[in-house]
Amino acid sequence: MAWPIESGRMNASDPLALLAVAIEEARTGQAEGGVPIGAALFTLEGTLLGKGHNRRVQDDDPAMHAETSAFRDAGRRPHYRDTVMVTTLSPCWYCSGLVRQFGIGHVLIGEASTFSGGHEWLAEHGVNITIVDDPGCIAMMTTFIDENPRLWYEDIGEVTDIADRPC
Amino acid sequence: MAWPIESGRMNASDPLALLAVAIEEARTGQAEGGVPIGAALFTLEGTLLGKGHNRRVQDDDPAMHAETSAFRDAGRRPHYRDTVMVTTLSPCWYCSGLVRQFGIGHVLIGEASTFSGGHEWLAEHGVNITIVDDPGCIAMMTTFIDENPRLWYEDIGEVTDIADRPC
Repeated sequence: MAWPIESGRMNASDPLALLAVAIEEARTGQAEGGVPIGAALFTLEGTLLGKGHNRRVQDDDPAMHAETSAFRDAGRRPHYRDTVMVTTLSPCWYCSGLVRQFGIGHVLIGEASTFSGGHEWLAEHGVNITIVDDPGCIAMMTTFIDENPRLWYEDIGEVTDIADRPC
Repeated sequence: MAWPIESGRMNASDPLALLAVAIEEARTGQAEGGVPIGAALFTLEGTLLGKGHNRRVQDDDPAMHAETSAFRDAGRRPHYRDTVMVTTLSPCWYCSGLVRQFGIGHVLIGEASTFSGGHEWLAEHGVNITIVDDPGCIAMMTTFIDENPRLWYEDIGEVTDIADRPC
């Protein structure tokens, strides 16, 4: 993990503290019975602008992935170049598109082992990507996918015949 | 305009009728003082699943682009392969990411002259893209961008020093 890669403005001891905010969001979503993915948007100096978690189950809303939820919570800004999107999981194409379109300069990712979205594409387009490879994030997603495959595949738009485990 | 390109299932006389639903959404947004971009999600048979328009101004919500709004209105589905996203304007990277992640098979676009987002990228990834090149859509966006450059650039995450015209 190299952090920060180029900005030099963020305290190098901060990434795990930033990730902790996204993990807390993921755990809140998990406790609500939802998809346990959390995200938070910070300034490069570490000021929290917004946070949120996947709300597919809670709000019956397929558009509210964690990163979109955090972005929405942060609200309107003239631009997002000086911000960091922190997420517990590699951003899917939808959320990667969000990062690219709004010019978010940095993405800090808890893990990209259980799912790999568009973070390499973002890196090719100049976004500063840091992957923590956090064991807690990996365990949380591994358990979730194992217990809720249908919900998981619905959340990433893939078709599956696997049924979720009965409660 | 070639429609439908491959499905053969949608009535070929329908694309302008589908686009009319998105245009009506855009005009509703315009009347509300918002960014005049509308979208609607249909089945390949032409059944309306959801519709919406950009709500940045109305809801103070930077995450609610037209396509996301329509997708959200359509609600949760096991998959979206048999759907068409209809939008008045070429989808930005955020909305293109939505289309790719959720496997929406077709995108019908009113115009891609005033703004070109990720539709070519989507085509490279197997999405069936149709551009109507509708003069009404072009005129609506041209006028909007001319009168509201700051709001427009905010909506696509670009920095500008141009001020909007005073009311």
